[in-house]
Amino acid sequence: MPTDAPQPSFVLIRPQMGENIGAAARAMWNFGLDRMRIVAPRDGWPNPAADALASGAGRLLDEAEVSDDVASGIADRTYVYATTARPRELTKPVFSPEAAMADAAARIGRGEKVAVMFGPERSGMENADIAHANAIITVPVNPEFPSLNLAQCVLLVGYEWRRAVEAAPDMVMQGQTIDAADQRDIEALARHYEDRLEEAGFFYPDHKADSMKVNLRNLWSRMALTRADTQMLHGVLRQLLRGKTK
Amino acid sequence: MPTDAPQPSFVLIRPQMGENIGAAARAMWNFGLDRMRIVAPRDGWPNPAADALASGAGRLLDEAEVSDDVASGIADRTYVYATTARPRELTKPVFSPEAAMADAAARIGRGEKVAVMFGPERSGMENADIAHANAIITVPVNPEFPSLNLAQCVLLVGYEWRRAVEAAPDMVMQGQTIDAADQRDIEALARHYEDRLEEAGFFYPDHKADSMKVNLRNLWSRMALTRADTQMLHGVLRQLLRGKTK
Repeated sequence: MPTDAPQPSFVLIRPQMGENIGAAARAMWNFGLDRMRIVAPRDGWPNPAADALASGAGRLLDEAEVSDDVASGIADRTYVYATTARPRELTKPVFSPEAAMADAAARIGRGEKVAVMFGPERSGMENADIAHANAIITVPVNPEFPSLNLAQCVLLVGYEWRRAVEAAPDMVMQGQTIDAADQRDIEALARHYEDRLEEAGFFYPDHKADSMKVNLRNLWSRMALTRADTQMLHGVLRQLLRGKTK
Repeated sequence: MPTDAPQPSFVLIRPQMGENIGAAARAMWNFGLDRMRIVAPRDGWPNPAADALASGAGRLLDEAEVSDDVASGIADRTYVYATTARPRELTKPVFSPEAAMADAAARIGRGEKVAVMFGPERSGMENADIAHANAIITVPVNPEFPSLNLAQCVLLVGYEWRRAVEAAPDMVMQGQTIDAADQRDIEALARHYEDRLEEAGFFYPDHKADSMKVNLRNLWSRMALTRADTQMLHGVLRQLLRGKTK
């Protein structure tokens, strides 16, 4: 059974080695975090190598929510951080682990549902993954030797989560609700615009289409929209097209 | 060649697995730390298993200072922290990793020579080891699952060192000098008192002698003595005995 402590979900994106998933579970539980999600694990799920490494944190693996793609893995989240070695996407806020987890604690205290995404071991997250994130977390490592592995990155963010909770326990437990759009709302909005813009020939030339779509996704996830905002933006698009197709 | 960045030494006390020593080197160098010391490694030194794990941080192992006992490993240090899972020695200041590294940065800025000790993997440090420390560092882990391994503990303290340096880079580089006693001075003082008190029959009854000695060691290391203080305390003891032996 998961604890009832309000907390962010930690989402492992396409993790490769089972051992690393197990070590990440241990790192989370060291700091009282027990909501693991796993997107498209390379070696399938469940994974005996993960269980072998997790020892006392095996429950997190049993209870992990596994999904096939990033969008499904964070569909119910209202605010998502992506951890990256270097902040490539400069149009999103870039947080230190400490600032990010203080921000996450405040959001969770307002009733938001928060996730932190961690990329695959070798390659890190792709731009299309990061496009789903509202903000970036970068660990201040030695630029000559930035070699944090997956479990170490999970450990540092988990450590900062626990520090944030200890600094302001009441804030996190407050549980007021704001009407933030979750990622499912954002996904629907993004797709709505993408489809209509596709039909309108917006993504041109072809070899730039993918990066234009990523840029557009980044725009939506950066805006911190409420549910009402998304409804309005759907309406805007419908209204624009109504004039056009008639 | 070590960097010339002022920094604490990280001292691994009786580490067992070479792999963990290598992983600790990587964790240090991730945060720009490159002064490793090793006391009485179980499997001798050098250790091929350590080299295999250290990859890009192998230089730290080549340059590591290896010694046979804790006293020699920290002889030239003026202020020493011991990392422990639970603060057992309540007569010493207990710091979080953040507070400890802020304190260390300030001390190094005043010209002090600082070390952080990390215990063996399974058993942790013994009370006799901790007696050499001026202060304790405890990581705020989940009490239900306090399973940090050696490299993770090194990683978290290294991370906080880097944060401290980034918060106050000038302080660390300042390099003013105070006349703090180093551990060699403290060791000489402790031994002077221990020997004379032994002769005086102070450590009685026999089965309590060891813990009485540890308590006395703790007293000296807690006092943050200057070199002049230690000279005075030697003089005090000599003077007391002069009256007695005549």
